[in-house]
Amino acid sequence: MVFVYRFEEAKGLDKFALGGKGFGLAEMTAIGLPVPPGLTVTTEACREYLRTGQVPAGLFPEIKSKLSELETKTGKKLGGEDRPLLLSVRSGGPFSMPGMMDSILNLGMTDSVAERMATLANDRRFALDAYRRLVQMYGRIVLGVPGEDFEALLDRTKKRLGVAQDPEIPGSEMAGIVQEFKELVRDKTGQPFPQDPWQQLEGAVNAVFRSWENPRAQEYRRFYKISDELGTAVNIQAMVFGNMGRNSGSGVGFTRDPSTGKKRLYGEYLGDAQGEDVVSGTRTPVPVESIDTSLRSQLESVAEKLERHFRDMQDFEFTVEDGHLYMLQTRTGKRTAQAAVRIAYEMANEGLITKGEAVGRLDPADVERLLHRTIDPSAAVKPIAKGLNASPGAVSGAVVLDTSEAAAMGARGEKVILVRPETTPEDIRGIIAAQGVLTARGGMTSHAAVVARGMGKPAVVGCSTLRVHPADGYFEVEGGAVVKAGDLITIDGTTGTVMLGVVPTVEPPLSPEFEKLLDWADDIRTLGVYANADTPEAAARAREFHAEGIGLCRTERMFNAPDRLKIMQEMILSETNEERSNALRRLVPFQLNDFLGIFRAMKGLPVVVRLLDLPLHEFLPDREKVLAEIEALWKRGAWVPEIQRVERMLGKLGQLSEYNPMLGHRGCRLAVTYPIIYEVQVEAIVRAAVQVRREEGETVKVGIMLPLVSGKEELILLKGVIDAAAQRTFEELGETLEYQVGTMIETPRAALTAGEIAAHAEFFSFGTNDLTQATFAFSRDDMEAKFMAKYLQEKLLPVSPFEVLDVDGVGKLVALAVEAGRRTKPGLEIGICGEHGGDPRSIDFFHRVGLNYVSCSGFRIPVARLAAAQAALKGETPPSSV
Amino acid sequence: MVFVYRFEEAKGLDKFALGGKGFGLAEMTAIGLPVPPGLTVTTEACREYLRTGQVPAGLFPEIKSKLSELETKTGKKLGGEDRPLLLSVRSGGPFSMPGMMDSILNLGMTDSVAERMATLANDRRFALDAYRRLVQMYGRIVLGVPGEDFEALLDRTKKRLGVAQDPEIPGSEMAGIVQEFKELVRDKTGQPFPQDPWQQLEGAVNAVFRSWENPRAQEYRRFYKISDELGTAVNIQAMVFGNMGRNSGSGVGFTRDPSTGKKRLYGEYLGDAQGEDVVSGTRTPVPVESIDTSLRSQLESVAEKLERHFRDMQDFEFTVEDGHLYMLQTRTGKRTAQAAVRIAYEMANEGLITKGEAVGRLDPADVERLLHRTIDPSAAVKPIAKGLNASPGAVSGAVVLDTSEAAAMGARGEKVILVRPETTPEDIRGIIAAQGVLTARGGMTSHAAVVARGMGKPAVVGCSTLRVHPADGYFEVEGGAVVKAGDLITIDGTTGTVMLGVVPTVEPPLSPEFEKLLDWADDIRTLGVYANADTPEAAARAREFHAEGIGLCRTERMFNAPDRLKIMQEMILSETNEERSNALRRLVPFQLNDFLGIFRAMKGLPVVVRLLDLPLHEFLPDREKVLAEIEALWKRGAWVPEIQRVERMLGKLGQLSEYNPMLGHRGCRLAVTYPIIYEVQVEAIVRAAVQVRREEGETVKVGIMLPLVSGKEELILLKGVIDAAAQRTFEELGETLEYQVGTMIETPRAALTAGEIAAHAEFFSFGTNDLTQATFAFSRDDMEAKFMAKYLQEKLLPVSPFEVLDVDGVGKLVALAVEAGRRTKPGLEIGICGEHGGDPRSIDFFHRVGLNYVSCSGFRIPVARLAAAQAALKGETPPSSV
Repeated sequence: MVFVYRFEEAKGLDKFALGGKGFGLAEMTAIGLPVPPGLTVTTEACREYLRTGQVPAGLFPEIKSKLSELETKTGKKLGGEDRPLLLSVRSGGPFSMPGMMDSILNLGMTDSVAERMATLANDRRFALDAYRRLVQMYGRIVLGVPGEDFEALLDRTKKRLGVAQDPEIPGSEMAGIVQEFKELVRDKTGQPFPQDPWQQLEGAVNAVFRSWENPRAQEYRRFYKISDELGTAVNIQAMVFGNMGRNSGSGVGFTRDPSTGKKRLYGEYLGDAQGEDVVSGTRTPVPVESIDTSLRSQLESVAEKLERHFRDMQDFEFTVEDGHLYMLQTRTGKRTAQAAVRIAYEMANEGLITKGEAVGRLDPADVERLLHRTIDPSAAVKPIAKGLNASPGAVSGAVVLDTSEAAAMGARGEKVILVRPETTPEDIRGIIAAQGVLTARGGMTSHAAVVARGMGKPAVVGCSTLRVHPADGYFEVEGGAVVKAGDLITIDGTTGTVMLGVVPTVEPPLSPEFEKLLDWADDIRTLGVYANADTPEAAARAREFHAEGIGLCRTERMFNAPDRLKIMQEMILSETNEERSNALRRLVPFQLNDFLGIFRAMKGLPVVVRLLDLPLHEFLPDREKVLAEIEALWKRGAWVPEIQRVERMLGKLGQLSEYNPMLGHRGCRLAVTYPIIYEVQVEAIVRAAVQVRREEGETVKVGIMLPLVSGKEELILLKGVIDAAAQRTFEELGETLEYQVGTMIETPRAALTAGEIAAHAEFFSFGTNDLTQATFAFSRDDMEAKFMAKYLQEKLLPVSPFEVLDVDGVGKLVALAVEAGRRTKPGLEIGICGEHGGDPRSIDFFHRVGLNYVSCSGFRIPVARLAAAQAALKGETPPSSV
Repeated sequence: MVFVYRFEEAKGLDKFALGGKGFGLAEMTAIGLPVPPGLTVTTEACREYLRTGQVPAGLFPEIKSKLSELETKTGKKLGGEDRPLLLSVRSGGPFSMPGMMDSILNLGMTDSVAERMATLANDRRFALDAYRRLVQMYGRIVLGVPGEDFEALLDRTKKRLGVAQDPEIPGSEMAGIVQEFKELVRDKTGQPFPQDPWQQLEGAVNAVFRSWENPRAQEYRRFYKISDELGTAVNIQAMVFGNMGRNSGSGVGFTRDPSTGKKRLYGEYLGDAQGEDVVSGTRTPVPVESIDTSLRSQLESVAEKLERHFRDMQDFEFTVEDGHLYMLQTRTGKRTAQAAVRIAYEMANEGLITKGEAVGRLDPADVERLLHRTIDPSAAVKPIAKGLNASPGAVSGAVVLDTSEAAAMGARGEKVILVRPETTPEDIRGIIAAQGVLTARGGMTSHAAVVARGMGKPAVVGCSTLRVHPADGYFEVEGGAVVKAGDLITIDGTTGTVMLGVVPTVEPPLSPEFEKLLDWADDIRTLGVYANADTPEAAARAREFHAEGIGLCRTERMFNAPDRLKIMQEMILSETNEERSNALRRLVPFQLNDFLGIFRAMKGLPVVVRLLDLPLHEFLPDREKVLAEIEALWKRGAWVPEIQRVERMLGKLGQLSEYNPMLGHRGCRLAVTYPIIYEVQVEAIVRAAVQVRREEGETVKVGIMLPLVSGKEELILLKGVIDAAAQRTFEELGETLEYQVGTMIETPRAALTAGEIAAHAEFFSFGTNDLTQATFAFSRDDMEAKFMAKYLQEKLLPVSPFEVLDVDGVGKLVALAVEAGRRTKPGLEIGICGEHGGDPRSIDFFHRVGLNYVSCSGFRIPVARLAAAQAALKGETPPSSV
């Protein structure tokens, strides 16, 4: 087993073997860039160290032998009397873990080497300072001498000299400081500072291995889900010095602008400085534009070589030693969402990468960020509070602290921000009516957060400095502003900030590059992208975003919008079937109008309408409200029949109340009891579609979908009801219409019996929200209120299964159902219309499992188009995991 | 295709081809019993008729040819001048449908045949009466003349003659009646009554086919789940006449006593009568014991032949024509549950059947009936009302109309009957405390019915003549008794009757035959039978019933029994972990005691303890009660801290309330939040098991089971909690104990990820109640309250999935989980402890899917032992369906 490679030998090994830094150095060496010579100890050696607790037996002989090759090549010698070799020993795992592990510089310094370096560099201060740094770093990292002890010594000297910064310490003091540091090491360890450079090297390599397991590195890996088993490589490289005077310096560069994506060399340079000085910020570096032309053109040529080789934007570090440029590191550069889009697009146009690669390079989470309104960058902004950025976008409105009031004001077209201590499902009407939501409590997966994200509505949650007093009509910021109901505020869900007044926002236009990339994504993806939309406006927006149809048109609003609710309540309070039917028929004109708007907007495309899903009690007022109304009626001596009507409502509420409403009398079960509800809906759908066809010569492709089916029997029964209602309407209209009847698959049993169901369904659509609840046997509301936080904290769940589809459980049901459904009916059209339809990780699964389309809220369509293309790009290869 | 077989040719065909009656006739002919000759038209002919609406083309020629063979053999001829042949034409499907289809007797009678018969029989009245009967039957059944028109004519004659009964009509009137009937036929049909016997036969066969589809036959088949597609056979047989004087007669017999099972000829005989006269009851038949020895010994020899051939108790019909015995029918005889047991046992002992057949012959539903207390047969009983016999057994107690009161009285050891308009899950405490339940509303699957059956508690439900007034403390029977709270009543859930006062009951002892059969069943079955038991008494009973262990020891009672509840509430109201822990630790002695009792009873056997499953809010009083208490405290000027304590409870109730409690913070989820709850339970379990071992040298095999797990992560976490608590207890006790940690599989996700869960579980136990709820996504309470009835009525469900396991959906999950679990851990012990564990049809499935055991309530153990054996007997053959 070979554990050690010189940079020029390592070509062909990947970053899992060499670590990210070692890989970059090897690649740069291979393409002829000026890299100080060195060698990489592979991660394999570290893994063996982690497994056995011992450095592999052959490792140091191997290092020694490779290093002697290096010595021969450079003519320098570790601990050499003539031309001493100094080394940097740096960690470098497969994934970047900035600042998490240890490095040691200037290794090889000893008393005698320091003297020789002083002579060679003709700079005694430089040499002793380098020695001082080694003793300090080595003492701390390898020998475990507390870092603050070194600092205290240094401070004492600076105090004595009356200087503030290290560089101000005169050279004459350096020897004394080195001496003090060495004594400190001897005092603390009982051993003198090692004067054998090979001993130093052994200690340093050991320390780097060890540092893989330090607590902060472990913590970091846990957070970023990097496997503990990867291990780190160790890079042992000849030192170069940027702090050797005017002709020296260090810098960092990006091959393109990481902020805008513009193609230009971007970076900073600090003369007479080492790399760490650029980072530490004690002196201010200058932009690369302002450095001398020769160096700049060298860097530009380096940048071009890097991009051509790595085929992506690079972030690199370099040092100039006495006029010679050395490359010390390169890696893929981080960039803003905007830059990512532009870089991907332009690189594809430059022919550097394919269109597929360009599409594959975008992070869907970044893309999401591009789509929401943001605070106008030119506005003067002074946040009064900061919470969690639960759902992106910036929005302004009047503070409302009560859901009903929010709903009422929203209905009047007023812009409101719902501010609550926390939200519960009862606040849903308020959230619907509001521009945005602000809560004092709750995390990223709290009810408000989840609902708002689902609706594409800005939300700031868990704003812990807020004290919300709904009963008293105000909220206050701890030690700050008091904001009354009706006051205007602005919240920015992208950053989590809250501001007083209306702060101007801007709509981030979809950049032409982005539009183009999405077009490319459309060419790549095989998964359709539909929208969830239940108003003409949402339908129009969906079309703008290139939705290929509506995969879920909910019809609840068509029953509980304010102008319908009264009629619906009449229907519920009906004593006879006839009364019930009469009430419902009065809803047809309203619903006809709703469907007309949607169908006109979507003409030519499919629209899948889900018939009513809500239980009846959702259409009645709260029990408390009814009780209060009865009391009020009695008090003011109201007419008895009027009181009786309200008392009937109370009685009905009692009858309709359920122990577990989610598992109760809703969905298609309601229509089994009251088929008339679906009959009315079907009539409105058919009339609207026919009318649009008459007007425009073309109409939507109508799909009628049943909710909450648990077996083929319900489907057969209700398909009969639907077909009969459609037939009656055809006869009245004197013309017919093609339509399909399909079913949601949102109960585990529907998934398990999908084979039989498919014989009677023309399409399936997975309702993964309900399916997730039933599969786990937890209700989302209760789970989020009671134990979600604990479950995430204890890692019982990797992430909320309501955000990212639970592939192991729910996904297994989806896969079973797809397979069984298609076995019965090859080519069965299958989509998904749960919230997961807009989640990139879930979309990847839906692609793999062979769905025809995902349907998601309009806002998430661009993300879904991208994610679907990326899923297709991954092809048949299983998803990589770290 | 052959459609018609003479009886002696039909050997080898089964009852699906020949119908039950045809099969019996063919078999009896084959074994040499005296059967009047005849032929059977197969069900195949009927099925072709049903498919095409036409009698198959070749059928009548075939009948004619077979009949002429018969004519040759008997020397009689249809319509013959010399020795006319008369026929009976009877339907007979594969399954008995008594009285549902049509038969025609005396076919072949015409004007001339009647005259000839009068001469031959030397009895004109007999001949004309037979003719009259044919005209009447044929007119009604084949020609569609209303039956009441014939009756009216007959009544007019009887009135004129001043006689009451048909037999009193003198022979002289018969010719006139025949004439009137024939004229009625001509008037109604425009055609004379057919004088061609072949035409009569065609009409009759057609009519029998047609009668398969008459509404009452369809209804009957739907009810008994007999396929509409089977069709009926037609039996055409030479008539024999039991009404030819003193030497003639008809009777029915059983080869053993159908009531007790005793081996003796049992039956009734009526001299000078046709079969229908025996049934009609106008004259009283005599027991076979009292008929003449020669006939009796003939019958006894017939009975023995029948049993030897059919190897089961037979129910047969016979006619004696002028001293000659003719067998007209035989079939397997219906019998009481007691008789079934004795017959099966004795036949096996006689060597007539094998032990396996004996076990296989018992109907588990019958067996259940044997196990409940019954009204003392010697008691004078006068029921005041009758409802549905929802849960068997007879029981007496004081009427209580309120659940809380029932619970309170039950706690004081008083015997009460809970009487409610209907029950809801809130009544559960009352049902637990009561001896039995009586409701005015609800069907066999209503809440009360299901809960009571589950508890093995007698229940009469849907007693629609009851008006229950809980608020006023009484109930009344429509137009009858008024019964006040506190009055004693007796209900008999076996018959559905309600009686005033305490009616004596008897415990039906398990007969020795039954015990023996159950022992045989134990030898046959491979599925273990465990008990659900959570008290020492239940454990002892389980052992008496030969349970092999406790498969589910619930621990809820150990927290909410009256002496524990206060401590539990303290724990819930705790502000700190320490308070919480202190409160819970005080429960250890109580629980230790509970476990001691159970472990002593079950020593040597396994006991699987399920850790707490209930959500915390179940341990707090109702919100309304707390509100009332606060008001009361204020009113009487109570001490403020006391009021605050109750107000804290109210606050806690608010915090703990859930939208969907079933899907909420319960089961192992609760322990994820409060591991201390399980720690306390584990300590009590370990201490009890160790103490029993110290006392008795042997202890139970302890299994500790987690409820509501949805994935391996919860199991891993809580197994850690359990092991640590056990370890701590071992250290305190100075000794250790073996125990297993396993999990309920009661969420769909647990079933779907059973492969991964199995790696960490030492056993599985399916909780099919919760699993059914989640798989269908309906809550049992809401479903039964809101739409169960409609679903059963519309046949969306064949039967409540809470009674019989839903094999297509829930069963698929069970099968998946068993397979995946055993793939991970071959030999993994898997049981089921839901209510289905005591249901025979479900047990059959559990056997086939390879479970190790079922666990059911003590009362159902005998049934489960039997059902398990029957499942094993079926072996690998798939269950037959009709």
